[in-house]
Amino acid sequence: MKDVKDVNDAKPAEAHKPAKAPKSEQTRTLILETALRLFQERGYDKTTMRAIAQEAGVSVGNAYYYFSSKEHLVQGFYDRLAAEHEVAVQPVLAGDKDLAVRIRDSLLTWLDVAEPYHPFAAQFFKNAADPESPLSPFSAESVAARESAISIHARVLFGSDTKTAPELAEMLPHLMWLMHMGLVLYWVYDRSEHTERSRRLVERTAPIAARAIALSRYRVLRPLVRQVHEVLEEFLPGAMATKRG
Amino acid sequence: MKDVKDVNDAKPAEAHKPAKAPKSEQTRTLILETALRLFQERGYDKTTMRAIAQEAGVSVGNAYYYFSSKEHLVQGFYDRLAAEHEVAVQPVLAGDKDLAVRIRDSLLTWLDVAEPYHPFAAQFFKNAADPESPLSPFSAESVAARESAISIHARVLFGSDTKTAPELAEMLPHLMWLMHMGLVLYWVYDRSEHTERSRRLVERTAPIAARAIALSRYRVLRPLVRQVHEVLEEFLPGAMATKRG
Repeated sequence: MKDVKDVNDAKPAEAHKPAKAPKSEQTRTLILETALRLFQERGYDKTTMRAIAQEAGVSVGNAYYYFSSKEHLVQGFYDRLAAEHEVAVQPVLAGDKDLAVRIRDSLLTWLDVAEPYHPFAAQFFKNAADPESPLSPFSAESVAARESAISIHARVLFGSDTKTAPELAEMLPHLMWLMHMGLVLYWVYDRSEHTERSRRLVERTAPIAARAIALSRYRVLRPLVRQVHEVLEEFLPGAMATKRG
Repeated sequence: MKDVKDVNDAKPAEAHKPAKAPKSEQTRTLILETALRLFQERGYDKTTMRAIAQEAGVSVGNAYYYFSSKEHLVQGFYDRLAAEHEVAVQPVLAGDKDLAVRIRDSLLTWLDVAEPYHPFAAQFFKNAADPESPLSPFSAESVAARESAISIHARVLFGSDTKTAPELAEMLPHLMWLMHMGLVLYWVYDRSEHTERSRRLVERTAPIAARAIALSRYRVLRPLVRQVHEVLEEFLPGAMATKRG
C-alpha cells in the first residue's frame, strides 16, 4: 500500500488544505483500509460501521469522527483512487506529447491503479448509478475526487501538441472526464481476465477521442462542443460546475 | 390499456411471426399485466412467479409456459413498451420533416408511453445496468425490443429532410438508439414531477443530435462516426450486430 500522506502531498487539488497531523491521518487510513477489506470480504451492504471500528481496533465514535457514514468511506475510497492515480500518471504527463498516446496511457494507468478494487466495484456501482446518491461520481460529495480527475485530464490535454480552441479550453477536460466515467461504467461489469476488455476499449477509443478533440477546433464544430457542454452543465450541474462555481 | 394484438399487428419488426391465437395472447397479456401490477405494488424482487400465477388465476405451470422466468416478464415489458411506442410515434413519423423536431417528438412520445411504468423502472435498472444481465437493453435477450426501437430511429432519420452519407446509413440509427438509452438512464433516476427534467433534456439534446447527424456528412467527420460505430460493434456486440448478423 502506498503512503497516503505522500500521495496527498503530490495532489495539487488538495494542496490548499491544511496538512493533517500524521497520527490522525494514520487512524483515518487504518479505518479506510479496514473498511475496504471488509467490503471485499463480506460485501458492502453487510458491513456495518460497528464491525469496521471493531476490526480496526478503534471506538465506534472514533470511526464516525473520521467517516460520518459508510457512504463517506466510499468517498474516501474515491479520494484514494484519485490520489493513487495522480502519482502513477506522472510519467505519462511528463512523457510523449501525442494526445492519443497521453489519453491512452493515462486511462491505462487508471485501470492499473483501480484493478485491486475491481472485485467489489460492481457493488458500489449499484448505488453510484443514481446521480442523487452521495456515491455517484456526479454528486456534490464526490467533488474532490472529481476535481482531481478533471485536473489530470486537463494536464493530459494541455501537455500535448494538439492545439485547441481557447473558448473550449475549460470544457474539453470535463468531456474527457465524462469519457473516463464511461470507461468506469464498462470496467465495473468487465469480467475478462485482468479487465483486458477494458484495456482494449481504451486502446480503441483513445485515438478517436484525440481525433475528436483535434477536430473541435474547426469553426463549424465548436458550437456543437459548446452545446454539449451546456447540456451537461444543466443536467449534471454538480459534475460540471466545479471550475466555474 | 391498449389491445396488445392490435399493437403487434402494427409492429413491422414482428410482422414475420405467425399470428398467435387470440386466447393464448389474452392469457399472455393477463399474466404480463398482473406481473407488472405486482412488481409495482410489492417490488420486483419480492414478487414470485407463484404469486403472479395465483393473482392472474392461472396455474403456475401455465405462467411458466408463457414466461419461463421473471426476467422473461421484464422482456415482455420491454416488448410492450416498444410496441406501444411504435403505435404512438406514427403521427411523428408521418409529420414534420425537420430532423430536430422528429428526434424531439419521437423521444417525448417515448417518455409519454413509459411514464406509467416510471415508479418501478429504477428497480429493474439495478439489474439492467449489467450488460451481461438478460435484462440489459444490450443483451441478446432484448433483441426484439431493441430492433423495434432502432427501426423507429431509422424512420425518424430517413423520413427527415436531412441528407446523410450513404456509408453511415446503417450506423446512425444505432447511434440514435444509444442516445435514447442514455435518456432512459437519466429518466430512470429522474425524480422531477411528470419527469419534466427528462423532457427538458430531450428538448435540449434533440437539436444537438440533429446537428451532429447533419455534420456527419462532412468527409473529415465520417471516419470518426465509423470508428465510434466500430468500437460499439466490438464492445456492445449484442446491441450493434442486429442488422448485420
